[in-house]
Amino acid sequence: MIFWDALFSERAKALKSSAIRELLKLVNQPDVISFGGGLPDPKLFPVERFRECVDVVLNEHPEEALQYGTTEGVPALRSLIAERSKKDGIKCSPENVVVVASSQQALDLVAKVLINPGDVVFVEAPSYLGAIQAFNAFQAHMIPIPMDDQGMKVEVLENRIKTLRSSGKSPKFIYTVPTFQNPAGVTLSHERRLQLLEISNKFNIPIVEDAPYHQLRYDGEPIPSIASLDNNGTVIYLETFSKILSPGLRLGWIIGPDEFIRKVVLAKQATDLCTSPFTQFVALEFTKRGYIEPHVEILKKEYKRKRDGMLSAMEEFFPENVRWTKPQGGLFLWAELPKAVDTNDMLKEALAAKVAYVSGTGFFPNGGGENCMRLNFSFSSPEVNREGIKRLSEIIKKRVSA
Amino acid sequence: MIFWDALFSERAKALKSSAIRELLKLVNQPDVISFGGGLPDPKLFPVERFRECVDVVLNEHPEEALQYGTTEGVPALRSLIAERSKKDGIKCSPENVVVVASSQQALDLVAKVLINPGDVVFVEAPSYLGAIQAFNAFQAHMIPIPMDDQGMKVEVLENRIKTLRSSGKSPKFIYTVPTFQNPAGVTLSHERRLQLLEISNKFNIPIVEDAPYHQLRYDGEPIPSIASLDNNGTVIYLETFSKILSPGLRLGWIIGPDEFIRKVVLAKQATDLCTSPFTQFVALEFTKRGYIEPHVEILKKEYKRKRDGMLSAMEEFFPENVRWTKPQGGLFLWAELPKAVDTNDMLKEALAAKVAYVSGTGFFPNGGGENCMRLNFSFSSPEVNREGIKRLSEIIKKRVSA
Repeated sequence: MIFWDALFSERAKALKSSAIRELLKLVNQPDVISFGGGLPDPKLFPVERFRECVDVVLNEHPEEALQYGTTEGVPALRSLIAERSKKDGIKCSPENVVVVASSQQALDLVAKVLINPGDVVFVEAPSYLGAIQAFNAFQAHMIPIPMDDQGMKVEVLENRIKTLRSSGKSPKFIYTVPTFQNPAGVTLSHERRLQLLEISNKFNIPIVEDAPYHQLRYDGEPIPSIASLDNNGTVIYLETFSKILSPGLRLGWIIGPDEFIRKVVLAKQATDLCTSPFTQFVALEFTKRGYIEPHVEILKKEYKRKRDGMLSAMEEFFPENVRWTKPQGGLFLWAELPKAVDTNDMLKEALAAKVAYVSGTGFFPNGGGENCMRLNFSFSSPEVNREGIKRLSEIIKKRVSA
Repeated sequence: MIFWDALFSERAKALKSSAIRELLKLVNQPDVISFGGGLPDPKLFPVERFRECVDVVLNEHPEEALQYGTTEGVPALRSLIAERSKKDGIKCSPENVVVVASSQQALDLVAKVLINPGDVVFVEAPSYLGAIQAFNAFQAHMIPIPMDDQGMKVEVLENRIKTLRSSGKSPKFIYTVPTFQNPAGVTLSHERRLQLLEISNKFNIPIVEDAPYHQLRYDGEPIPSIASLDNNGTVIYLETFSKILSPGLRLGWIIGPDEFIRKVVLAKQATDLCTSPFTQFVALEFTKRGYIEPHVEILKKEYKRKRDGMLSAMEEFFPENVRWTKPQGGLFLWAELPKAVDTNDMLKEALAAKVAYVSGTGFFPNGGGENCMRLNFSFSSPEVNREGIKRLSEIIKKRVSA
């Protein structure tokens, strides 16, 4: 008889079941309309072009694709990523790129390499749930920085850093999803990106820029990535094939300064030896054949339609005292209900009415967001989204008038 | 300017570059005969049956295979693994199975969930290099237990546990590769497996049984897995598709008691959300179609031939005062040179003569194995292996006679 509780590590004790996890299960129930996940529309997966690429890989590189690979990733894919990133203004060479098994693994490796128990990390309020989980698993002390419609309030960040410094503490990094943020849907303005870099340089604190959605802009002018504005090697940049090709491949990448990347590679080796060369070769072939760009155009067209439908359904059905963000891209928007409404408590009613969302509290490491919710619009059709918003509005109205 | 050394975590500082990693690079140089990796023979990959399974998956499950999946793994694959494991005598249900992105990830998750810095973990001497790296990354204090031709000396283990207990310390787990051990090639006897379980029960210390090679037996009678002999839920069992299908898929699994598995799932969620549903569906299809068994038969036949060729080449060429193990299965054997020979130092000469191996020291967390080496026989053809052994023997002879 093993007494597991006596054996679990301190970090394991800090691990809690998450809302996303529970919600992924609900998504599998066909009668529930779920705004909960962050799932691409599976009807849009480019299956035939994908199959074509698998065939090419199995014809041309079977012995490499099915074998162990190097920890850093398939060399040709690293080169391609470096080349494409340079076009986006990011100063890098293939040696600065590590292919990882998803952005979530990137977050795990960043945390593994940088965080000692109790170390301070800045996140946005609200922040990406998966990042909170990854940092929490390494016992980080997360300090959330408030946002407005221009993204993270960088002047608040600077004040917090100064306060921490004066008490002798050095924060490890600043984590941000600057473009079409998950969960809030807002985008950090160009000016604030420059200010954030200034702060990073002034205080020698790296920025972890998580950019899974940046290619999914539906309107407005593109804003350069923070990494592309960085001239001093203070940015660690994370991107993924999950939103532009398929999350089922579990493929992402990290671009960072040499010294950091060398440590990440050692950490990754101890973590999983290497990312699947098979899925790497398929993604490489898909990209080389120029299939990413037309696929992203399809996604942008369809997701824009879904976002527009979602916003007009909310306009039509939601009561007046609910506010929500109007994202220019990405997969999510963020709704704020009157203070009295507890969205965790309301979720049971919503599920009974066969509609799901993620309550706001999961996005705040130290409390907050009780009256908020994240809504995803990419997964279902506009018609289903409209029906879901209608159902949800009935539930909200009951709470608001109560 | 970021001073990375000031930012790296304590665990990151403990990460060192490994021999395996450096050797994977050498394997890519076509003129070096490498006994270094643990690579399957790429000429034996079942490419056409694999392609057939990919096609079926993309026809029948494209929307699930290319989408995010649940952290635990594709339900049908978990069920199939549970069913097959029950036939092997392991008491489990699908809920006891987590699909992971390789055995290396299994080791990472085991360590993440159980090890606090300084915690004691028992390993074999020598032990698997990847396990040492994974445990080292979580700052474990590893205590190596000597082996003989019957595997780990369990009476030594018991004495070490008693000593630790009397000093107030509780070890976290016992790590073993009981069958065709990596690197030593020896197999833990049936009797010792029972004794190991007794010790595990008596002292409430779980056993982590790593079983990547157990299907690759070339002669002798099969010995039951430790997990199949366990009636008290003290064994955490790890297996992988890497050696019976393809390491390029990065697919393995953990079978363990409910309470442990629940924690592993939470840790995995924070680590990478889920293993690739695409590669899971392909492996599921491959297994369902009954393609694993005939493929394993081919592997056994070919690897037996390679092992036999390797052993007779060693018999023919190696000097008298070199000893080596004669494994009944797996991918490796272990050679012990006269005490005076330093295999790390000798490696430069070997590489100059275009032959590579892994020096023994990497397999001992706290020193040892200076005069030893691990030799892999599965990767190259018997002819190439013979030539490699011939080259290596010349290098050894120079050292031995020096």
